[in-house]
Order: sequence, then C-alpha cells, then structure tokens
Amino acid sequence: MNVDALLATRTRNIQASAIREILKVAAQPDMISFGGGLPAPESFPLDLMPELMERVLSGCGARAFQYDQTEGFGPLREALTGFCQTKGVPARAEEIFISSGSQGGLDALGKIFITKGDAVAVESPTYLGALQAFNAYQPSYINMETDGDGLIPESLEDVLENRKVKFVYLVPTFQNPTGRTLPLERRRRVADIIRRYDALLVEDDPYGDLRYRGSPLPSIKSLAPENVIYAGTFSKIFAPGLRIGFLVTTPDIGRWLVLAKQGVDLHTSTLTQALAAEYLDGGFLERHLPRIIQLYAPRQAAMLESLERHFPSGFEWSRPEGGMFVWAEGPPGLDTHDVNRKSIEEGVAFVPGRYFFTEPGSGCATMRLNFTNSDEDTIRKGIRILAGVVEREL
Amino acid sequence: MNVDALLATRTRNIQASAIREILKVAAQPDMISFGGGLPAPESFPLDLMPELMERVLSGCGARAFQYDQTEGFGPLREALTGFCQTKGVPARAEEIFISSGSQGGLDALGKIFITKGDAVAVESPTYLGALQAFNAYQPSYINMETDGDGLIPESLEDVLENRKVKFVYLVPTFQNPTGRTLPLERRRRVADIIRRYDALLVEDDPYGDLRYRGSPLPSIKSLAPENVIYAGTFSKIFAPGLRIGFLVTTPDIGRWLVLAKQGVDLHTSTLTQALAAEYLDGGFLERHLPRIIQLYAPRQAAMLESLERHFPSGFEWSRPEGGMFVWAEGPPGLDTHDVNRKSIEEGVAFVPGRYFFTEPGSGCATMRLNFTNSDEDTIRKGIRILAGVVEREL
Repeated sequence: MNVDALLATRTRNIQASAIREILKVAAQPDMISFGGGLPAPESFPLDLMPELMERVLSGCGARAFQYDQTEGFGPLREALTGFCQTKGVPARAEEIFISSGSQGGLDALGKIFITKGDAVAVESPTYLGALQAFNAYQPSYINMETDGDGLIPESLEDVLENRKVKFVYLVPTFQNPTGRTLPLERRRRVADIIRRYDALLVEDDPYGDLRYRGSPLPSIKSLAPENVIYAGTFSKIFAPGLRIGFLVTTPDIGRWLVLAKQGVDLHTSTLTQALAAEYLDGGFLERHLPRIIQLYAPRQAAMLESLERHFPSGFEWSRPEGGMFVWAEGPPGLDTHDVNRKSIEEGVAFVPGRYFFTEPGSGCATMRLNFTNSDEDTIRKGIRILAGVVEREL
Repeated sequence: MNVDALLATRTRNIQASAIREILKVAAQPDMISFGGGLPAPESFPLDLMPELMERVLSGCGARAFQYDQTEGFGPLREALTGFCQTKGVPARAEEIFISSGSQGGLDALGKIFITKGDAVAVESPTYLGALQAFNAYQPSYINMETDGDGLIPESLEDVLENRKVKFVYLVPTFQNPTGRTLPLERRRRVADIIRRYDALLVEDDPYGDLRYRGSPLPSIKSLAPENVIYAGTFSKIFAPGLRIGFLVTTPDIGRWLVLAKQGVDLHTSTLTQALAAEYLDGGFLERHLPRIIQLYAPRQAAMLESLERHFPSGFEWSRPEGGMFVWAEGPPGLDTHDVNRKSIEEGVAFVPGRYFFTEPGSGCATMRLNFTNSDEDTIRKGIRILAGVVEREL
C-alpha cells in the first residue's frame, strides 16, 4: 500500500522531533544525561499509591472507572480551585479544563484556534512540545525577543501592534529551555499590553511550584484574568505517567475546548484524575512537594557551582531560582551540536539549544542542561567532563 | 475578548454533539436509560484494583509513573500480541500503537490522513464518535449501503471504483449503532475488494469480545493484514475510565501515528497502561470476561424478549449475538425524535437513530437501544413503557 499517497498535507509538517534521536542516545545506560526533561523517578510518591488507590475505591468506587465528562472529573476540578488559589491563580471549577498532560491542553488550544497560516507569537527560544502541538495545525510563528529576564515586553507590543496573532504563548517562570523567569515589573507590563490589545495569552507554568530560592511571583493570569489561559500540570509535582494537565480558561473558550477534546480522547483517564484529586484533597501534595524541592535544590546548586568552577570564560548561563533547566551560551562560533557529539563519546549528553528556536541558524552556541535526573556527584562529574570538551572546542 | 474572531475555521465544524443533550437527560436519576453506551459499573473488576496496583508497583516501580515512549508501554504492547492472537488478529509488538481510548486512535488516524475535503467512506449508519474524531480534519463522507448483515460489499466496491478515498471506516462486529455483524462471506469479499483496490480499511472492534451466542468470526485484519488497521479497546472488557485503546497497524503507518500523537498527549498514561498489562498478563481478563458476558447476556435476552412481546407490528429490530445495542426501526413516517421526547416524560430515554447518519433526513424512524446499563427487570419495564409510547405515535 502506498502510505505516502494517503497522508494529509499537514502530516509532512509533523516532523520527527529532531531531538528525539539525541534523547535516545541520552537515555543509554551509563550516560550522564543533562538531556531530557525528566523528573527524578525518586521524586514520585510511590509509597502513597496504594493508599490513594484505596481512597479512590472507597470514595468514588466505579465512578472512577466509568466514562466521565470531557471537561474533567468533578472532584479534581473542585480540588484544583483550592490548589490554584495557593498558586495565586484565580480559578472557579467551571473554568478548569482537564487535559491529558499539559500537552493535551496545548493540542486543544491549537485545534480550536489555528487555521493554516495563522500567526502564533512565541518567545525565542521557546518550549519544543508547544511547537509540536501547534505544528499539526500549520501556524506561522512570530518570534518575540528575550533577554536574561525572559520576554522583552516591547517586543510583544511591537508584534501585537503590527500583526494579527491568534495567541501569544509564554512560559514565564523557570522557562524551558532557558530557566529564565519574567520579573514582576515585566509581568505587569505584559498583562497591561495584552489587555490593551485585547489579545489572548497562554501562560504555560509547569515549573512554578519547583522553587528553590526567592519568592513566588504573581501569575500573569492573576494580572489579566480575562485575557490569559493558564496551563498547569501534575507531571512535575506528582508523576508525569499519570498524564494530568489542566487549563484555567474562560467559560466561553472552555466550551470550544470541550468540543475539540471530545473528538480527541473523550476525556482524560478518570482513574488518574481521581488519584490526583485524592493527592490534593488528602493534603499529600502539600507534604510531598517539599521533598521534591529538597531533592532538586542541591542538584541545581551542584550544577551551578560546577559550571562556575569548570566552564571556561566566554560562557554565560542562567541562574534560575527553580525549575529543571540551566541554559548555557558559549562565545559566537561555538557549535554545541559538535560539542554534544563529542561529549557523548565521553559519556555526557545534553540538548543543543538550537532546537528551541524556530529560525534556523539561531542558538548555535547554546545548550540546555537538565539537573533533575542525576544526583549531585554525577552532575559534578558530568559538568567537569563537559567543560573539558567545551574547552577543546573553543 | 472576542473569542469567536479567534477561532479556527475548523472549529465551527466541530459541532456540539447533538446527542449530548439527549444523553444528559438520559443520565437523570430515575430515568430508565437505553440511551448511552455505558458499560455496567458492576462489570468493572474493582476488587482486583488493589492487587493490580500492587503488581505494578512491585513489577514496574517508578517506570509506571515516568514519561514513556509515545507508541505505548512496552509490557502492554507485548501482552497485547498474545491477546490479539486469541482474537484472531495477527499483531507483532512493533505493530501495536497504544492510544488514549480508541477515540485517541481515531483522532490520530484522522490527523495523519485527512486533509480538508478528503473522502472517508463510512457505513450508513455509522459510529458517531468516529465522525467526531474525523470531523476536526474536515473530510467529506461517502456513505456505503448496509442491510441487516451490515455493509453491502458491492457498495464498497462501487465507492472504491469511482472515488478516491483516504480510508474506509467499518465496525464489522456488533456495530454501534445497529448491533449488526458482517457475516464471514462478506468479510472475505470486503477483504478481497480492499486488497484488489489496495485501499486502507479501519476495522473498529470495540465489542467483539462481548459475544453471548454463536461463534466468533475472523477479523478482516486477518484476511487482509496489509490493508487493514485494527482498532481495539479496554473500555468494554476492563474499564473505560482507564482510557486505553490500541491500533494494530503497519510499521510505516505506525511511525506517522507516533509523530501525530507526540503533539497530542506525548503518550497515554503509563500507569493505566501498566494496569492493563497486568490485567492481561496475570490472567485476570481471562477470568473476568466470562462474568461480564454472564451479566450482559440476560440483559440482552430481556430486551429482545420484551421487544417481541410489546412492540407493535410494523417494527423490526436487530437480534445481535453480542455487543451493547439493539437497533429498532419503525414504519416510514414515524418520528423517533418525537417518540423520545414523549417517552422521556414517562421516564424512558433512548437515542433516535437519525444521529448516526451523515445525510440529513435518514433514519427518522430508527432508534438505538442500549441494554448493558440496566438490569433485566428495568429493561422489561422500560421496553413496555416505550412500546406504549410508540403505539400512540404510530
């Protein structure tokens, strides 16, 4: 059968993720991997699972195993209103849309908003998974400029003044890939601009709860509630294998999201939603989250100290107060793709930063370094080896 | 914010499911509902869940909670090869694509194959959830004729001879909505036609395991393996709230499905996949399935007997050997939409059959009757009431 002749035109647009091969190499045993974006398996509250299952069975019974409404499992939507409040995200239960991972939320947003050629404004660099979700709907991307403090508000204003965009996509806290966080003053300006142009902003916040230092910042959603869709996830604070994400949206947008999601998967797993609801309602998250932070904070410190100690001058890197990534940039002319190839030979993998830019030729000297999935000694060893490779490549 | 102005052109195509309101009414307490397509909650093996969770925790540990590969959890793909073999569906592990419910498989197929305007051939009537999945990609539908034995092969041949179709979609066993099953001779002819035109057939088989009488028939997949994608699900034999479906595809199509699914939800819940793998591997399905059949067989018998006893002449209905639905058709001129409105007033709901046709004006005298979600006495009472309403409407 000639499968190629049957493919939709969009399908050729859904490129194999270029970093997939890199991540496969990074996942090899004995490889020190700064490559993926995996939470540490020891961060999962496995010891709680029998109790959570017991609570689901006694509290919900068969309801947790039956078909359920597309917008999400009632008890989880209720529980999330409280959780969102603690995060400074205003959310009523009817504004919460449960998705199959935050990826499911991004797919639903792409599906309802993007017609081929429509413009979506993104930070440069931006989160690859969002591009993958949107690409299937064939948007054009408008890149907004960033610096060490994340999005430059003037660049956003410039885009909204001159272009018609369907929505703006932003990861304002401990961004993937850069780890950068938009400061309060910029959040206020972004909220102001979005409101002024009556534009739609998607605020993706998978990492905000993983704060190791400093004080939490208000969500942009709290500063411009009518114009912002907030995206959250249980992947970093419970376990990614449950595939539970959520959007805090507005009821009118929520209605369209539900129609789109009906066709995609009817609804997210009732069982994993019920487990997540118990995790919140039983106070388990509250007790477990500090342990995740205790696990990751020293890992991040080890990476930042090792970079300081071993990396050659001419390099700069982000010093995020939380999250999962450090972003390093070498001097112009350095090709981190070559660095990665050589460091892999010495047993250390990372992701060259170029893959997070939509314009070819950008970010050639950058690298994304994940620190959550290795212990401190391994991180120190890995950065020392990587520094040696970098030194020789300069 | 003017949300309507932001919507993609496709979004207006994603209509609110017309039966959604009907199903809401049907779900009211004290309503005798033949409306939904819900498995009986008492069919779920809730008593097994603690043990299955224990096995997942001891056998897979953190791996069952981590990000996983898009194509599906390795142990489940392995377990499914054996299960498919018992169903007469040839499947190697690398040909199995796990989806978030079978809905997720249909969405992925729509996504990789359908460009706006492309033709998809469907039975008339056909499964509504498939239309909902495909509609987002804006196909045109070609209706193939059916009779009491399901698809008429000549109609398929006629379509393939005269039209270019991306794929043919079929529920050949205990079809939703009609309960009809394609006999062996027709399966052979369909397989022959599909092979001869080198066309792609999607064989959706959610109900095949729910057989109460008679002998299983070979899957069309087994008769034309290169040209058929087989879709299965755990929703009727384990629990729909787990959202586990699967496709048995060919490696070249599987590769595209994986790329599409990456953007949609990265992968289906690792935990629910691991539970499903244990359900198969531990022999639990083998022991539990007969109980589901013992539960449903008398319900179906009660419905068929009650129709026989109470329904007026001029009515015909299917007498399937399994599945979840009976399809009844009244004399021309009867409007089952009116019947449903009046029967609801008397506490009985069903789904008017017209919603399963893509051409307006078809199936006005038909009704889909679900028998899995009520006990025998309730079914007898409901059919008696419904017969009274029908009698007055004739």
